[in-house]
Amino acid sequence: MKNKQIILKSRPIGTPTNDNFEFQAIDIPTISKGEILIKSKFISVDPYMRGRMNDSKSYVPPFELGKALDGGVVAEVIESQSSKFQKGDYILGNLPWKIYNQANENKVQKISSLIQKPIHALGVLGMPGMTAYFGLLDITNPQPGETIVVSGAAGAVGSLVGQIGKIKGCRVIGIVGSDEKAGYITHELNYDQAFNYNTCKDLKTTLREVCPNGIDIYFDNVGGTISDAVISNINFGARISLCGQISLYNAKEIPVGPRLQPVLLTRSALMQGFIVKKYAERFPEGIQQMGQWIKEGKIISRENIISGFDNIPDAFLGLFRGDNIGKQIVEIL
Amino acid sequence: MKNKQIILKSRPIGTPTNDNFEFQAIDIPTISKGEILIKSKFISVDPYMRGRMNDSKSYVPPFELGKALDGGVVAEVIESQSSKFQKGDYILGNLPWKIYNQANENKVQKISSLIQKPIHALGVLGMPGMTAYFGLLDITNPQPGETIVVSGAAGAVGSLVGQIGKIKGCRVIGIVGSDEKAGYITHELNYDQAFNYNTCKDLKTTLREVCPNGIDIYFDNVGGTISDAVISNINFGARISLCGQISLYNAKEIPVGPRLQPVLLTRSALMQGFIVKKYAERFPEGIQQMGQWIKEGKIISRENIISGFDNIPDAFLGLFRGDNIGKQIVEIL
Repeated sequence: MKNKQIILKSRPIGTPTNDNFEFQAIDIPTISKGEILIKSKFISVDPYMRGRMNDSKSYVPPFELGKALDGGVVAEVIESQSSKFQKGDYILGNLPWKIYNQANENKVQKISSLIQKPIHALGVLGMPGMTAYFGLLDITNPQPGETIVVSGAAGAVGSLVGQIGKIKGCRVIGIVGSDEKAGYITHELNYDQAFNYNTCKDLKTTLREVCPNGIDIYFDNVGGTISDAVISNINFGARISLCGQISLYNAKEIPVGPRLQPVLLTRSALMQGFIVKKYAERFPEGIQQMGQWIKEGKIISRENIISGFDNIPDAFLGLFRGDNIGKQIVEIL
Repeated sequence: MKNKQIILKSRPIGTPTNDNFEFQAIDIPTISKGEILIKSKFISVDPYMRGRMNDSKSYVPPFELGKALDGGVVAEVIESQSSKFQKGDYILGNLPWKIYNQANENKVQKISSLIQKPIHALGVLGMPGMTAYFGLLDITNPQPGETIVVSGAAGAVGSLVGQIGKIKGCRVIGIVGSDEKAGYITHELNYDQAFNYNTCKDLKTTLREVCPNGIDIYFDNVGGTISDAVISNINFGARISLCGQISLYNAKEIPVGPRLQPVLLTRSALMQGFIVKKYAERFPEGIQQMGQWIKEGKIISRENIISGFDNIPDAFLGLFRGDNIGKQIVEIL
């Protein structure tokens, strides 16, 4: 039984590489009263982590150089000195990228009984699922018959947003980076239409064709020129939920583009940035509802699983190459 | 007794000039049953009219080439064939730029008894006043102790926004284009601080100095680089009310600038465009409240009055030179 961790070796300038990470052999921690020893089972890699690799102020503090990166982890309790947890329990926590961690009993939570598959605690019934649920419903209040455009539509969040939009009676269009993804979200996920931004002739023209009634709601995961094209086609009273800007995360200079305020102004549109933590008190509602929709077959979730602790950095880097369909997870065997 | 009108002779490319307007002598209209003959007393010139000079879709249709421009007008009834109006009544309407107009009795309204000075129907108790009231209160929901920044702070809307912000217990900072305006809004209008963007050393640095606790609310009348600097200093949970973008209205090409979404995203900020018409049903509330504040001396309004029908184009062009302090009005003697 050996332990390992992944530390931030250097801060990336531009696109991160394997060189920014370092693997270290470490001891398995010992635990004292009120603590548990846990073994990581599923580790979540998420685009927002790119921001934490920079030394800049944001809504989460930056990763520290020379220390283990951290994020959402589902782990199994191996040993417990806590009355709250028993050996074999599955827990969810924000934990360092280590195979074995010790954790204070108050810093992690048992996976809710509403969540039947532990891996879902990192996806459809976890942070990405709650992001899709509240980021769409609370910010944009979709009405039947409205047109929703989702960028990054085959990703962890986007793949759920479109399905929720369909449940609400909207017409849903997905923008993706490959034909495989376009096929997946239209054939498997109930998206009305999808197109590949890498191969479509012209973004604005394509959007006008697939959205003949304009765009009422835009759920933005990517930013950049894709968002420019979408926003130029929004309707009066449109709502834009700003969830991610993955196309800009690796920019080396401050990205510039057409100014948006004139469009937002003349179309009385709303643009709202959010982080899902804001809705923490309402997560039980979101988990209950999403769980119900899964049972009813109205929401399909997919995890893109890579095996092996050593593959965590590459799984993370793959997010920026667009490797994943659905939620990217690393399984630790 | 002679009549005149001002027509749109040509559409401006870039900054409009006198050449875009043409004066024409016309007959005084005759009226039939259900109509009134009115003489213009006060004509409003407003920045949003620049957009109507272009042949492009917006929230109001463009002015037509060869036809009289139109806008907010306070007029006196000269002759009435309507049971709703009597000679001597003052009315408010959206009317062509003519000295004499005929109007259908259902297309204009008597000035509300809540409005004691008719000129106020075009300013503090009219469109600009309602824009300030609802654009600030409804969109940004200011809380005591928060910091509000207003651009175009000495203009028709901006001069009111700051005063409403002070009534709500906020710290209010104004950005203006001259030292005279800065002095006016701090000495006369209760703004906490103001600075001249033409002479301050660096916008971002100046903003950091005058807003040591960051910016919670931005009421944007101008757009462009001023707004870039403000938005780079917003706090988590900030709200931006998009009222105008006067610095961009005369742009010949699509203006570009730093992308805003990353800032809005990481600071969970809201940006909302609006037009005041949306609040039409609540105007009585706004007029009543603003009128009350005027009586209590909490709101001071100022009109920048130019006399003479022939000066309308120049009064309009002056908006883009920053000539006016307060609401720009042309009085027809």
